[in-house]
Amino acid sequence: MLTSQSKVEELSKLYEIQLKRLHEEYFTFLRFESVSTEPEFKDRLLQCADWVKEFLSDMGMKVDIWETSGHPTIFATYDGAGPDKPTLLIYNHYDVQPVDPLNEWTSAPFHPSVRENEVFARGAQDNKGQCFYTIAALRALLQRDGSLPVNIKLCIEGEEEAGSAGLLELATHKREELQADFLAIIDCCIQKADEPSLSLGARGLVSLEVEIVGSETDLHSGSHGGIVYNPIHALAEIVAKLRDSSGKILVPGFYDGIEEFTKEERDRLNFDFNEKVYGEDFGAEPVGGESEFTPLESCWLRPTLEVNGFGGGYTGDGFKTVIPAKASAKISCRLVPGQDPQRVGALVKDYLESLPLKGVKMNVVVHAGGGCAIRTSPNSRIVQAAAQAYGDVFAKQCKFTLEGGSIPITAALAEASGAEILFMGYGLHSDQIHAPNEHFGLDRLKKGFLTVGRLLQILAE
Amino acid sequence: MLTSQSKVEELSKLYEIQLKRLHEEYFTFLRFESVSTEPEFKDRLLQCADWVKEFLSDMGMKVDIWETSGHPTIFATYDGAGPDKPTLLIYNHYDVQPVDPLNEWTSAPFHPSVRENEVFARGAQDNKGQCFYTIAALRALLQRDGSLPVNIKLCIEGEEEAGSAGLLELATHKREELQADFLAIIDCCIQKADEPSLSLGARGLVSLEVEIVGSETDLHSGSHGGIVYNPIHALAEIVAKLRDSSGKILVPGFYDGIEEFTKEERDRLNFDFNEKVYGEDFGAEPVGGESEFTPLESCWLRPTLEVNGFGGGYTGDGFKTVIPAKASAKISCRLVPGQDPQRVGALVKDYLESLPLKGVKMNVVVHAGGGCAIRTSPNSRIVQAAAQAYGDVFAKQCKFTLEGGSIPITAALAEASGAEILFMGYGLHSDQIHAPNEHFGLDRLKKGFLTVGRLLQILAE
Repeated sequence: MLTSQSKVEELSKLYEIQLKRLHEEYFTFLRFESVSTEPEFKDRLLQCADWVKEFLSDMGMKVDIWETSGHPTIFATYDGAGPDKPTLLIYNHYDVQPVDPLNEWTSAPFHPSVRENEVFARGAQDNKGQCFYTIAALRALLQRDGSLPVNIKLCIEGEEEAGSAGLLELATHKREELQADFLAIIDCCIQKADEPSLSLGARGLVSLEVEIVGSETDLHSGSHGGIVYNPIHALAEIVAKLRDSSGKILVPGFYDGIEEFTKEERDRLNFDFNEKVYGEDFGAEPVGGESEFTPLESCWLRPTLEVNGFGGGYTGDGFKTVIPAKASAKISCRLVPGQDPQRVGALVKDYLESLPLKGVKMNVVVHAGGGCAIRTSPNSRIVQAAAQAYGDVFAKQCKFTLEGGSIPITAALAEASGAEILFMGYGLHSDQIHAPNEHFGLDRLKKGFLTVGRLLQILAE
Repeated sequence: MLTSQSKVEELSKLYEIQLKRLHEEYFTFLRFESVSTEPEFKDRLLQCADWVKEFLSDMGMKVDIWETSGHPTIFATYDGAGPDKPTLLIYNHYDVQPVDPLNEWTSAPFHPSVRENEVFARGAQDNKGQCFYTIAALRALLQRDGSLPVNIKLCIEGEEEAGSAGLLELATHKREELQADFLAIIDCCIQKADEPSLSLGARGLVSLEVEIVGSETDLHSGSHGGIVYNPIHALAEIVAKLRDSSGKILVPGFYDGIEEFTKEERDRLNFDFNEKVYGEDFGAEPVGGESEFTPLESCWLRPTLEVNGFGGGYTGDGFKTVIPAKASAKISCRLVPGQDPQRVGALVKDYLESLPLKGVKMNVVVHAGGGCAIRTSPNSRIVQAAAQAYGDVFAKQCKFTLEGGSIPITAALAEASGAEILFMGYGLHSDQIHAPNEHFGLDRLKKGFLTVGRLLQILAE
């Protein structure tokens, strides 16, 4: 019988044989401008979905396109391992974030460019890179062995970056189709490039938009300055009332019901944080959280409220002496266990609406969707199998972390499938996802391929 | 000898005879995309300058193009009235404000469209409309009479909307060329469409830009939320510290040295303000000024500080859960007599830099240019002549007001020319200058033509 190490080596050979083809296919996947948040990209998003569908059909999976109120979800199944083998439901997404500010990209976001073994493109990591090593590993095993060691269900959605509203609806009436033993959310990070780690949970999310309207049209700041109340000032004053100087969110009830972590849970996690390395990676100081928590405690165990966009007046080159008709902000909260997204959204809305306004009107919309924070058990079969797979690939002991980000669909998929959850992935926090110059390492593309292959083998043992 | 009334009637006939041609020429002038604040419009701005130059040459004026570090100034002279007649220096500008937000324009900003006798286009009023009735009146009199009753110098600049830096430099070494008895700044407003009024002054201006930088690149708000300090929050907190709840500007020293108005000066001005009409015109409440002053006192007699633009993060359709690398704001202050623009700019910069920051860096730039507030005397020859001209055109007594806006070049031109200043014009505050759907009335185009004609006649008497 082969050792774990030789099984990894065999998978590695399988990868190297088809290296050129894999890179070409990965780049093709990246070239689709599958931005889900902006309606004008719809046709290119659908072309991307078609490409994924064909990839999966060609390798022998049964593929359905699940239409939603938004963008379609690709659902593919393989049941050739037989009823006595477990079923693994894998989640990925083929949509990507918008690309602006476009002028800050060194190479065009939809023309993948390789520099120092990193692939630069929108979606290179989030989530096309991670989706691609997953489906490439399944195809490679299927082609080599004629079968897979476990049954597979793939759920690849098209609006993760837009809040997953469509798949959230689907999950409630596709329970039978989604039924599985294990659910792998392959959209996560490792803590360091040279060290295996698995996340034991992710934060939840809720998002809102606030608009302040002062007048019917933009006004000349000379003729009207001193007469009207400037909506930019009104909105800035509101934003300034969202946090205190210690980093605490001032929305009444925001922290209510948060589940306390046990010492055992904290001890399991690797809170190592190197301020110097962080400064080098991001050019930023880690001083944004609540002052009583360390950076990773703030990011993993505490909720946040961030303004993701603030726009009002003239912001182009030069100057325009205007008092704008309106100003608006996009706000999102990251949530921890014990916080319900819509409840927190309503608390923020109530608080915003309770603030005094002078001469301006406010509109607040809490977006549907979002999702609760999730925790997985390090003692579950799927997490243990994945820890072993990562350990085999790196030949090092796997560590545990949490994820500051959110995969809003996780709770709904776990509920619908009845499966034990695994968060896995090969992202690094320095990959600049959601930002200009997103990138993903070709070494990590391969490690992802190997880890998916090993995970399937271990689950079948 | 003709009465004032019959002189107005003769000018009116002169206007009506060439009505079609005048409208066509006005529209041609408006079609040039002469945006001065954005470098990519430079060629169209120069085409616009050429058109004005030819218009003035064709009517028989001697025209020079004064090159500046920025955009050229057109300088044209007529000295045919002879040395015993006064010289009137007239100021206009051919550049316009940027047009965005473009999607809020009902008709394209550089394709003039007439609706209910109002011409909709960028620059329709500010300042092409006012410039056009001025040069059209000069041409009509020259063509009819073969001469003008007074000597004329025209100074038509190309960067009023960008701070007038070029003409400000020129003014210091073109003193001889600019020498005049009277200076008419024809870029101002009347208080009501059916009532003659003249402004006895304008506020000054100084502008700044503030940038807050938190990181090298935009960051994912999940992976970094709770770790970094969001530059949008930092900037909003700063903006919130610029004013108190009574509308007072909190910059130390901001109000120092402001010249108090005398009772006589106040009594001369028409402070009538109709809140209901204002609400109908602008959809806004007049509650933005310092609480101890009325709306027009705030706008005319008090300085203001307004954020004209605030940008950070993602503000397009949909959502992007990002913590932006930076956020920035454009700030301008309107100034009253006793306030020096660069001194106030430095005070604002000092105050901004004194505010505590956490984990972010700040850059503040005070722009050169700007200008002091100006007051004219209601007893001066030029203001009295203009009051009579307006009175003749409307057959009503002319009232006096102040201008909340700024014409930064006025002080420099007055200094260089040694002339007595007149602020005149036919703008209305509801013209939406600096905003989408700028417009100017064809009736006011004609009244401007008549008033310029009458002013020249009265000055020669």
